[in-house]
Amino acid sequence: GMEEFEEAVERVVAGPERRSRIISEEEKRIIAYHEAGHALVRYLLPKADPIAKVSIVARGMSLGHVRKLPERDFVLISQSKLEDEMAAILGGRAAEEIIFRDVTDGATDDLEKATRMARAMVTQYGMSRKLGPLQFGRKDELIFLGREIMEQRNYSEKVAREIDAEIQRLVETAYNHARGLILTHRDKLDAIVQKLLEEETLERDELDAILQDVAQKVRTEQVPV
Amino acid sequence: GMEEFEEAVERVVAGPERRSRIISEEEKRIIAYHEAGHALVRYLLPKADPIAKVSIVARGMSLGHVRKLPERDFVLISQSKLEDEMAAILGGRAAEEIIFRDVTDGATDDLEKATRMARAMVTQYGMSRKLGPLQFGRKDELIFLGREIMEQRNYSEKVAREIDAEIQRLVETAYNHARGLILTHRDKLDAIVQKLLEEETLERDELDAILQDVAQKVRTEQVPV
Amino acid sequence: GMEEFEEAVERVVAGPERRSRIISEEEKRIIAYHEAGHALVRYLLPKADPIAKVSIVARGMSLGHVRKLPERDFVLISQSKLEDEMAAILGGRAAEEIIFRDVTDGATDDLEKATRMARAMVTQYGMSRKLGPLQFGRKDELIFLGREIMEQRNYSEKVAREIDAEIQRLVETAYNHARGLILTHRDKLDAIVQKLLEEETLERDELDAILQDVAQKVRTEQVPV
Amino acid sequence: GMEEFEEAVERVVAGPERRSRIISEEEKRIIAYHEAGHALVRYLLPKADPIAKVSIVARGMSLGHVRKLPERDFVLISQSKLEDEMAAILGGRAAEEIIFRDVTDGATDDLEKATRMARAMVTQYGMSRKLGPLQFGRKDELIFLGREIMEQRNYSEKVAREIDAEIQRLVETAYNHARGLILTHRDKLDAIVQKLLEEETLERDELDAILQDVAQKVRTEQVPV
Amino acid sequence: GMEEFEEAVERVVAGPERRSRIISEEEKRIIAYHEAGHALVRYLLPKADPIAKVSIVARGMSLGHVRKLPERDFVLISQSKLEDEMAAILGGRAAEEIIFRDVTDGATDDLEKATRMARAMVTQYGMSRKLGPLQFGRKDELIFLGREIMEQRNYSEKVAREIDAEIQRLVETAYNHARGLILTHRDKLDAIVQKLLEEETLERDELDAILQDVAQKVRTEQVPV
Amino acid sequence: GMEEFEEAVERVVAGPERRSRIISEEEKRIIAYHEAGHALVRYLLPKADPIAKVSIVARGMSLGHVRKLPERDFVLISQSKLEDEMAAILGGRAAEEIIFRDVTDGATDDLEKATRMARAMVTQYGMSRKLGPLQFGRKDELIFLGREIMEQRNYSEKVAREIDAEIQRLVETAYNHARGLILTHRDKLDAIVQKLLEEETLERDELDAILQDVAQKVRTEQVPV
Repeated sequence: GMEEFEEAVERVVAGPERRSRIISEEEKRIIAYHEAGHALVRYLLPKADPIAKVSIVARGMSLGHVRKLPERDFVLISQSKLEDEMAAILGGRAAEEIIFRDVTDGATDDLEKATRMARAMVTQYGMSRKLGPLQFGRKDELIFLGREIMEQRNYSEKVAREIDAEIQRLVETAYNHARGLILTHRDKLDAIVQKLLEEETLERDELDAILQDVAQKVRTEQVPV
Repeated sequence: GMEEFEEAVERVVAGPERRSRIISEEEKRIIAYHEAGHALVRYLLPKADPIAKVSIVARGMSLGHVRKLPERDFVLISQSKLEDEMAAILGGRAAEEIIFRDVTDGATDDLEKATRMARAMVTQYGMSRKLGPLQFGRKDELIFLGREIMEQRNYSEKVAREIDAEIQRLVETAYNHARGLILTHRDKLDAIVQKLLEEETLERDELDAILQDVAQKVRTEQVPV
Repeated sequence: GMEEFEEAVERVVAGPERRSRIISEEEKRIIAYHEAGHALVRYLLPKADPIAKVSIVARGMSLGHVRKLPERDFVLISQSKLEDEMAAILGGRAAEEIIFRDVTDGATDDLEKATRMARAMVTQYGMSRKLGPLQFGRKDELIFLGREIMEQRNYSEKVAREIDAEIQRLVETAYNHARGLILTHRDKLDAIVQKLLEEETLERDELDAILQDVAQKVRTEQVPV
Repeated sequence: GMEEFEEAVERVVAGPERRSRIISEEEKRIIAYHEAGHALVRYLLPKADPIAKVSIVARGMSLGHVRKLPERDFVLISQSKLEDEMAAILGGRAAEEIIFRDVTDGATDDLEKATRMARAMVTQYGMSRKLGPLQFGRKDELIFLGREIMEQRNYSEKVAREIDAEIQRLVETAYNHARGLILTHRDKLDAIVQKLLEEETLERDELDAILQDVAQKVRTEQVPV
Repeated sequence: GMEEFEEAVERVVAGPERRSRIISEEEKRIIAYHEAGHALVRYLLPKADPIAKVSIVARGMSLGHVRKLPERDFVLISQSKLEDEMAAILGGRAAEEIIFRDVTDGATDDLEKATRMARAMVTQYGMSRKLGPLQFGRKDELIFLGREIMEQRNYSEKVAREIDAEIQRLVETAYNHARGLILTHRDKLDAIVQKLLEEETLERDELDAILQDVAQKVRTEQVPV
Repeated sequence: GMEEFEEAVERVVAGPERRSRIISEEEKRIIAYHEAGHALVRYLLPKADPIAKVSIVARGMSLGHVRKLPERDFVLISQSKLEDEMAAILGGRAAEEIIFRDVTDGATDDLEKATRMARAMVTQYGMSRKLGPLQFGRKDELIFLGREIMEQRNYSEKVAREIDAEIQRLVETAYNHARGLILTHRDKLDAIVQKLLEEETLERDELDAILQDVAQKVRTEQVPV
């Protein structure tokens, strides 16, 4: 049946469910807010990949997860899409900070992903107006009893400083974007969390019920490009 | 026949056609403007290698391409030719930015090529008036279970800073040159794109029909050297 | 019996007792104050892992030790918990400095642990407000007749300076926190030391007898989050 | 006969003639001015190795060449001789710039040679008054499945900056020396080029016919040392 | 007998006597003052390891030596003890400078030891108030056809500068401490040297005869901790 | 006989005579002044190793040489002796500069030796008052299919700058010392050169005849230490 099939897909993508792990009630609340933060920001941002479901059932190494809709791959990724994706990725940490005024190491992988995207935008895709349409750094392959790829710095300390500043600007802009959406729609965040603590997993239609109206409003407020 | 032969040449140079790849209408429009940007700038700049055909049929890894005329190789490459080539290479990104006010990762290889050319001009060919007729950096061959070439920095941080500034100046000058041509001849760009979306590929004679008059005008306006 | 079992647990965790080592009376006093410093700070800080027992019996390489309660593992570690743990870890050195106005190399491992935690907070967990929700540095695996993990610096000297300043701020804040608790509760520290010099080891209930009232008071004074 | 013998010598030193390579008329003119620039400056500078013949016949990798007289080797090389050699080496690029107001990658090897000489003068021969009679940098032999020589920097960034400035000063002084000679004797340069385009190769006696009087004058104007 | 036993101990610790080496009278005087400098400072400083004997008989690589009393090992080393040890280690160089207003390479190993101790105090033991209770640098084990330990710098240039300044401050404070003791007790230094030149070796009791009264006085003048 | 024996010693130390090498008259004069410069400065400086003979007969790689007296080895090397040796080593270059107002690459090895001595004085022997009695840099042995010693920089850029400044100060002081002696005793230098050009080699007694009176005077003028 459909349920078995979905379970199979989940197992492949995120590993088997891991209910045996002992997670305290306090931790469960933090995880729920973290995942709800991802879900809310991803749902509201028009260029972020759409969301299929959100869950606080631990699978593999992750304590919860957001699954994206199985849409077609993009052959081109635009700067505006990357900015929305970064905000969605940082939505979990932003929710933790807003709700608990304390943050956890649960966002470690998210920070890694967001930093890597921002770095690629600046050094590989030429998406920083300050640094211009150039590439910075050189990927060298050092083949040595295995295969090793090292990135060699081929620029001055001054450019390194500008790259750092641009990466920080991009990540912090995305983080503040996520924070702003969560602060504005705090009631929706709480609603998702309540459902997550009751049912552990929300499907797309349940998210639609909570968020569709808001999303409509957010998108119409945006200036069309 | 001629068509089979041309197809064979294409396959060798750019890989077999790849019609199966699903590209959205929006992406097709971006690709068309990107390739048209290359074509327009290359056509108008007198020292850039002349263009044989432009296409938005995906081949191998690329989503579209511009094929150059099979002319004789140059034994010498002048600074002015390198500057025109760089502008043509950056024409795709410039068109994206002007039309969509958003840019994509589709220009990644172009940025790599333009940056590499500018670096060679400054550090290998002595074409920067600021840095003078010297070479900077030392190519070392580190033979090690395979063959590895590492470029060793043999200059100070101050010179590194000046090299960076010169590379940035060269790339941005070329980019602005491309932007200027596209902005001035926006109607021609749109004409190329319209044809590309209808026919997918434009031969030299079709480009001539659109651009020959403008090219004549651009060249006569230039101060002869 | 219970005592044999506890001894067995100790041997596994901290190595067999090592009574043969000749330790001077002066050194024994320093060790007692060092361990009592750890115990006092750990007992009083609400988020630090709770303490099971404190001892000045040398085991393995360590001259004394504090054993934590065998509680459940956390799946999430918060910033506030990390700050309390750092203060507890630095409590030994803080006690030495306050009592003897001289410090020893006995805190070397503690300093290593505290610095490593602060570095992870700043560069991996994004817990520095100054540096933001980013990651800094790249872990590379250089497989080479064995397995080697090298951390590659992928940021500018300016960011390196900010990272250093944040790490120093975190460690010194924790150290001053520990110092403050020890100075305020100096009488309790002396009481623990006196017992340690008499009995060598204090169990949880003996620590409760000395510290429970103070801990109650410390916690009620804190602003609830 | 003599001609066969000379051809044999040429083949060993510069590779067999390569008439098959297609060189445009414009490129031939650039090559002729480049080689004539070398020849003129080398002929006029008293300490540069004397010239035997100049040619625009492509051989091996080079598009033209200047052959030196087979004189005895020097056991000592003076600073003033190195300065004259550097000017002769940069004479090709200087001629290109003066005549065409555009430069080519044809001078790449010349720039490499001149930079290497200037670096040796400053870091190995102690010929910079600013840096004094010291050596800078350490040649290490890293024997590693083959033989590798790496130059290790054993000085501060400040000294690196001074070394760079001295190398740039030496190369630019030599370049300006070459430029000055070419500008002053532009008519002689044109005369050499005309002959080169007609005959492809000029022997010593043909150069003497064009340049001997000027050389006499240049040398008598110099203050004897 | 006792003498043979002592000789055996010496041979193991410092190598067999090496009387064959030709040492000039001038050099013997320098060596005597160097060893007497060590002995005087070590004798007078309360926390430096006590001295068993001093000798100007060359053994192994060293031209003279000071043997410490075979006391128990310390399990803890305090900052104040490290400071006194550093002064004793630098006492030889300080004596040379005071007496001859010229210094020799004979202190090379002493400088290495003192610098290493100061570095450990600052970077490993957290004994610099300026840098705080942190560790700096990371010891990596690079296993590579043998075993290699490399210290990796994981801090900024600014911290490197502060570490350098602290190491220099510690070594120079210790050196000035040694100088001050030697200048104040110059007559005792001369007395030790005279005996060393006569007898080559002084036992503990002979040192006591010269230095005991002074040591008593130095220690009573110190403020008790 | 004595002559054969001396020749044998020479061959071992400096390689067989190499009369076949063609050296111009101009070069012979430069070599003679270079070697006479070494000889004059070495003869006059009281702490430099005494001279046995000076020659302009080429041997092995060197074009001339100064042989030292086979005196006993020193077990200690003082700072003042190192300073005199450095001046003697730089005497060749100083003579070239004074006589010809041009310098050659013939001093390359001398510069290497002088720089190495100055570096050891500053970084290994603690002979710089500015940097103090510390060691800088760490010698690491990297055993790797052979044996490699690498010097690792373990200090900040600021200290690197101070080390450079001290090394430059030491070498330039020695160079100016050599220059001063040569300028003052120019007549003696010319006398040595005249003899060298006539006889190719001067023995100790011939040098004594030219220089003994001057040396007497130089030494009595010095303030005794």
